Amino acid sequence: MSSLDEFALIRRLTDGKQSVAFQQACGVDKGIGDDAAVAYLAPGCQLVMTCDTMTESIHFQAHTMRDSDIGYKAMAAAISDIAAMGAIPRYALIALSFPKEMSQHKLEAVYQGLYDCANRWSVVVVGGDTTSCIGGLTVTVTVIGEVQEGRALLRSTAKTGDVVFATGELGCSAAGLDYLLKQALPADQWPDVEDGSSEARLIAAHCRPQPQVDAGQFLQQSQVCGALNDVSDGLASEAWEISEASGVGIDLIEDRIPIADELMAYAIRTEKDPLDYILYGGEDYHLIGTMQAEHVIDMQIKFKAAGLTLYIIGYVNAENSGVRLVQSSGYVVPIAKQGYNHFGKDLS
Amino acid sequence: MSSLDEFALIRRLTDGKQSVAFQQACGVDKGIGDDAAVAYLAPGCQLVMTCDTMTESIHFQAHTMRDSDIGYKAMAAAISDIAAMGAIPRYALIALSFPKEMSQHKLEAVYQGLYDCANRWSVVVVGGDTTSCIGGLTVTVTVIGEVQEGRALLRSTAKTGDVVFATGELGCSAAGLDYLLKQALPADQWPDVEDGSSEARLIAAHCRPQPQVDAGQFLQQSQVCGALNDVSDGLASEAWEISEASGVGIDLIEDRIPIADELMAYAIRTEKDPLDYILYGGEDYHLIGTMQAEHVIDMQIKFKAAGLTLYIIGYVNAENSGVRLVQSSGYVVPIAKQGYNHFGKDLS
Repeated sequence: MSSLDEFALIRRLTDGKQSVAFQQACGVDKGIGDDAAVAYLAPGCQLVMTCDTMTESIHFQAHTMRDSDIGYKAMAAAISDIAAMGAIPRYALIALSFPKEMSQHKLEAVYQGLYDCANRWSVVVVGGDTTSCIGGLTVTVTVIGEVQEGRALLRSTAKTGDVVFATGELGCSAAGLDYLLKQALPADQWPDVEDGSSEARLIAAHCRPQPQVDAGQFLQQSQVCGALNDVSDGLASEAWEISEASGVGIDLIEDRIPIADELMAYAIRTEKDPLDYILYGGEDYHLIGTMQAEHVIDMQIKFKAAGLTLYIIGYVNAENSGVRLVQSSGYVVPIAKQGYNHFGKDLS
Repeated sequence: MSSLDEFALIRRLTDGKQSVAFQQACGVDKGIGDDAAVAYLAPGCQLVMTCDTMTESIHFQAHTMRDSDIGYKAMAAAISDIAAMGAIPRYALIALSFPKEMSQHKLEAVYQGLYDCANRWSVVVVGGDTTSCIGGLTVTVTVIGEVQEGRALLRSTAKTGDVVFATGELGCSAAGLDYLLKQALPADQWPDVEDGSSEARLIAAHCRPQPQVDAGQFLQQSQVCGALNDVSDGLASEAWEISEASGVGIDLIEDRIPIADELMAYAIRTEKDPLDYILYGGEDYHLIGTMQAEHVIDMQIKFKAAGLTLYIIGYVNAENSGVRLVQSSGYVVPIAKQGYNHFGKDLS
C-alpha cells in the first residue's frame, strides 16, 4: 500500500465502476467524493436500513472463499436484509479494513465482488471508508433501501392459520462450507459448475448467494404476506424469530421441506442428515415467511411466471409451542432454537 | 463472551439505551430487532449518507483513548460528515468487530460512548452488526441524515471572492494525541480538566470531539455559504480538497488563524510550531468553508448569539495557485497537500 495514499487508493478501487449516468438514474445527486453522499428517496417511501459485517477467520478464510466472493457475499447479505423487509435496495456504503501486508490485487478483487453484486441489483455504492488494520480483513456493508410507507414486512406479523413458505431450497450454503473446510483446497482446484459437479453448486450457494429482492417485492406488493425473514442463520433460527416476534407456534412439515439434489447427493456421500444443514446451517439468503393460505396457489403461479419458486413448508398455529417438526413418521418434535452463530463458529 | 450468544449480547448492549418514545419522536417506525430498520425522512428532504471506521492501533490504543471515547469518537466522526453537508443527522448503524478475549465490560463501555454521542445529537441507533474477529477492535458507524432538497453544502462550490472561515480553533486534537503518545499513561492517570490543566483540554479535543451540527445548520439555512468541509485530516488537506473540487485558489492568512490557549501553551513547552498541528494534524471536526464576504458580520453575530464562533481565516482567489499561506512576515508560501493519513500514521 506504500505508494498510494488513502484518497488515491479509494479512487483506484471505485473510479469508473458505476457510471455517472447510472448513478443519476438511480437517484444519486452526489456520490463518492464529498463528506457524505446525497440522494433521493422515492415519494411516499420510508427508509429501510441495515448493515452486515464479514471478517476473516470468522466468516471466511482463503480456502472457503475467493477474494471476489468475500465482497460479493458481504454485499449480498446486506441486500438480503432489505429484501426481507419487502423493500428495494438503493444505496450502499462500504467500510473495509485490511492488514497492511495485503496485496492491492486482493483488495481490488474484493471490491470487484462488491460491485458485481451491487450492479446485479442496481444498488449504487455512494460512500465508505477504507483503512488499514491489525488482524484480518473486515468488510462492513450498509445498504439503504426504500419501501412504500407502512408496507414493510416484519417478523412480528405472522397470524394463526397462515402457511409457512420458503422461496428456495435451503442448506446448500452450509453443505458447501462443510465441503470446502474438509477439502481445504486452494480455489483454483475447486470443482467447476460446468463439469456438472454437485459440489460446485454447493460452493456457489456458499460463495455467491442470491438475495431474493424480486421475491420480496412480489410478497410486499401482494399484501397477503404475514411475516418475512431472510435465512441467514438457518431455518430453525429464522422460524424461531418469527414465532417469538409474532407470539405464534410454527410447525414445519418434514415432507414438504424441499431438498436440493446437490444437497441430497452430498448428504448421502457424507452420511449426514440433509435436514441438519437446512435447519442449522445458514447464509442461504432465501426468504421464509407466512401468508394467508387461500392465496397460495395464486402466488405460486405468479412466482413461477417470474422464474421464482415458492415452497409451502409448514403452518402457523395458535399454540405456545415454539417451532416444531412434523416428521415423516407422523411424530411432532420440538426444533432447537440453535442457529448459525458466528460467536460459536470460528473457522480458524 | 462464551455465556452469551449474539442475540443476547446485542440485546444487552442496546436494550433500553434509547426509549421507544424517543425513537418514535425521531421518526423511527421499526428500530433494532428485525432484518432492517424502517424510518421516515422529512418531506422535501434528500438522504445524506456516510460511514467512518475506527480501528485499534491505527486510530486508537489503550493509552490514547478510553473505551467509551472510542465509541464516542466513532459516532462523532460520522455525525461530523453529515454536519459538513449542512444536513441533520438522524439514524445510525453500528458495526463492531471485537477480539474474543475482549471483556464484556470494555464492550459495554464502547457502546456507552456510542450512545452518549448519538443521544447528544438526537441520532437514533437503528441497527448494526456485532461479531468477533481476529486482531483488534474495529468500529464502523454509518450515519444517515437529511437535508432540504438541493441544499446540501458541497466542497465544489467555493467561489472567487469568497472568504474562508473555520468554526473553531484547530490543532488541539493532534496536540492531545501527541501528548498522550509521549506520556503513554493509563487513562486514570491523565490530567483532569477540573484542575484547569491545558493538557486535559487537548485530551478532550482528541477523545471527545464535538461535531458542528448546529453550525452546519446555520450555514445551510443562511444560503450564503459556498463550500463546506469538516476538518478530519487537518486544515491543509481540507483546504486543498475545496481548492481542487472548486477549481479555485485558497490563501490562508497566518495572523487570522486562531490558536487555542492550550495549544499555544503546549507548543511553547514542546518547542513546536502550533501551526503544524493546525495544518497537518486532524480530527478536530470543526467545519471550514467559504462564504460571501458581505455576509460575514451578519453571520458572526448570528453564530455568537447561538454560542458558536466563526473565524475568518483566508480568502478564495481565481488563481491556479492551490493552497497558500500568507505569513505574518508578508511572504506567501505554498502549503503542502499532506494531511493526516491513517495509512501512513500507524500508532502501533
